[in-house]
Amino acid sequence: MSPALPFDAERLARLAREQKVDVVLASTRHNVRYLTGGYYLHFFARASRFGGGQYLSFVAVPVAKPQSGFYVGRRDHILDEQHYIDAFGPFWIADRHWVPRGPSMSQDAAAVAARALRAGGHGAATIAIESSYLPADAYDALRCELPEATFVNADPLLGELRAIKQPHELERLSEIHRLTAEVIRRVFQESTAADTTREISAKVQRRVGERGGAFLYSLINVGPGLLRAPSSESWGRGRPMHLDVGAELDEYVADVARMGSVGAPPAEAAALFEVCVAAQARVRAAMGPGVVSGDLWRLGTEAVKTGPGAEYGRLQVHGLGMVSHEPPVVAQDGTRRMEPGMVLSIETEFRHPDVGHIKIEDSVVVTRDGCEGLGDVDRDWCIAAGG
Amino acid sequence: MSPALPFDAERLARLAREQKVDVVLASTRHNVRYLTGGYYLHFFARASRFGGGQYLSFVAVPVAKPQSGFYVGRRDHILDEQHYIDAFGPFWIADRHWVPRGPSMSQDAAAVAARALRAGGHGAATIAIESSYLPADAYDALRCELPEATFVNADPLLGELRAIKQPHELERLSEIHRLTAEVIRRVFQESTAADTTREISAKVQRRVGERGGAFLYSLINVGPGLLRAPSSESWGRGRPMHLDVGAELDEYVADVARMGSVGAPPAEAAALFEVCVAAQARVRAAMGPGVVSGDLWRLGTEAVKTGPGAEYGRLQVHGLGMVSHEPPVVAQDGTRRMEPGMVLSIETEFRHPDVGHIKIEDSVVVTRDGCEGLGDVDRDWCIAAGG
Repeated sequence: MSPALPFDAERLARLAREQKVDVVLASTRHNVRYLTGGYYLHFFARASRFGGGQYLSFVAVPVAKPQSGFYVGRRDHILDEQHYIDAFGPFWIADRHWVPRGPSMSQDAAAVAARALRAGGHGAATIAIESSYLPADAYDALRCELPEATFVNADPLLGELRAIKQPHELERLSEIHRLTAEVIRRVFQESTAADTTREISAKVQRRVGERGGAFLYSLINVGPGLLRAPSSESWGRGRPMHLDVGAELDEYVADVARMGSVGAPPAEAAALFEVCVAAQARVRAAMGPGVVSGDLWRLGTEAVKTGPGAEYGRLQVHGLGMVSHEPPVVAQDGTRRMEPGMVLSIETEFRHPDVGHIKIEDSVVVTRDGCEGLGDVDRDWCIAAGG
Repeated sequence: MSPALPFDAERLARLAREQKVDVVLASTRHNVRYLTGGYYLHFFARASRFGGGQYLSFVAVPVAKPQSGFYVGRRDHILDEQHYIDAFGPFWIADRHWVPRGPSMSQDAAAVAARALRAGGHGAATIAIESSYLPADAYDALRCELPEATFVNADPLLGELRAIKQPHELERLSEIHRLTAEVIRRVFQESTAADTTREISAKVQRRVGERGGAFLYSLINVGPGLLRAPSSESWGRGRPMHLDVGAELDEYVADVARMGSVGAPPAEAAALFEVCVAAQARVRAAMGPGVVSGDLWRLGTEAVKTGPGAEYGRLQVHGLGMVSHEPPVVAQDGTRRMEPGMVLSIETEFRHPDVGHIKIEDSVVVTRDGCEGLGDVDRDWCIAAGG
């Protein structure tokens, strides 16, 4: 008996019917992992470039019969991907196709995938490709080998498929958010007024790395002033700093923002921060199954557009999982209703020219009767000794 | 006065003439960094995926007049790339084009680049694109906006341009190789016979990260047996382990392999390792300007194809810099001559079914009168206490 499908095949079938897709052909690291249940070739997972091109693998899922899906990977005398799949553990895709060493890894992989699609009777199908990622040479190979196929962008389908998270995904998201929040707190505490934002950003990177996460970015601001990039500017005493950090664990991303200062923060910054925290609480209190996204947007926006900094206030709520800003979309005129298992990052912030960029950001999962924070620790303003 | 070009414009012009290229249009992180002198938008440098697609920027260099090159980046109400460029420092490209928020980041960026190329008189030019990387939707946008242009693969040109390293590149390569070799040594020393290769690989990742490097991979083998992937297998006592680790610093990659065991290694493994080390020494002794790559390959291969494990021995020498296995290519029938500033990774190994995968790998730079190791520390077989 083959292992169970790691994704919701009924949801996939429904989305594919709506979007008139016959076959999903995934090629990004995150969607290959999603569709295989976690597998991606270790050697190329963090840097795909090699020789004159880049590594490319495919997962093909015919939506009417997902169990007949196939995998395209690499096999040559140096690197036999079959061994890595064996070491990974249960792998539901029994039909595997191998790309030998050749002039172009990506083009060759696409040609193998195209021939397997044709052999499977999908030569004239509507094939959803990841067109914002699929390399141009691979795209040319697909079109050349499958002249009767129709190619559409897979992102609307795969983004929606991922929008409802499974328990193991929530565990990963919680873990990486907690790690990120704890790292930010620690870096605030161990940094000094003389440290530059570039140095502080580098500390964040090392602290994420030493805990086994993959550092993605640290947007960093010292107020007043709105620059949010690592630079030669020092933290200084009594100046608000925001750290908005991205990190990744097993393909799941965290997006966490926190405030800190060496010594007490300016009163105006502290007041804006309280508005941010209160707006977060208001959105969380309203969040739950059936809530309409536009309503969430409006009540959260009202909450930040309150008090003296109102004109600089902004709320953003966005889906989060393997991709930041994945579905569901929450916007002013959004009609989408929240569902259990959706994960939302809530950003409340003031970009105040006289104060700085004051912000807090955390993620929550929609539950059966409301929502729960995901690793949302150390949320208060951190007052560092900074000595 | 604008800052100097950070690459060898004469070399670029010569290569472009040979390959009949009018404009280089780079879009990968590594080539954007190479051509700008180190810049890439921090927020997307480690994960480009966002919303329904991915971030994409371009550097365009008309080879006849490189100073007229332009940059395509992102500017919207959340993220204004101009600020990041200002924080970066000197940036030679004065002509900058900005992509506003839109439905597809990559397609929109390509459309902006295409219009700038047309406005610059390159509408019917031969444009070298990174076709193994450029997203399909960006490729479609380029072809749609520039129907008279000819598109060719930029890799042969950019790979050759990067083949001769500048001093600051050698510093980075030396630093990341040293860091990687030191991390491997430390992980051998702090690991135990009971640790699995998956646990040991995770230690490597954390140790690279805590030192500010970006972990790429750790190929790990415990002999006998030839699996080279992190798995549930334990190190055990007296068993040869090889760690072949990739790591990155400011876009420059290290590729380092070392051997270790808990307690003394098996005599056969130690003997094969000595052959590996001796073959390395032989290749290094022969390396220097003017040496023909095929000659290097043959003398190194002869050196590993010696003694009892001869049939399992293998030498590989490959260029290394921003990309592993970049030019120069060293192969059996290679006629290429070595030049000062070229960096070569030398791999000598035995994949012996009764012993395991015995290997050492280090990188050298070709100098005026020979070659020098780059951060090639801790090269001896590490005997760990393992308790």
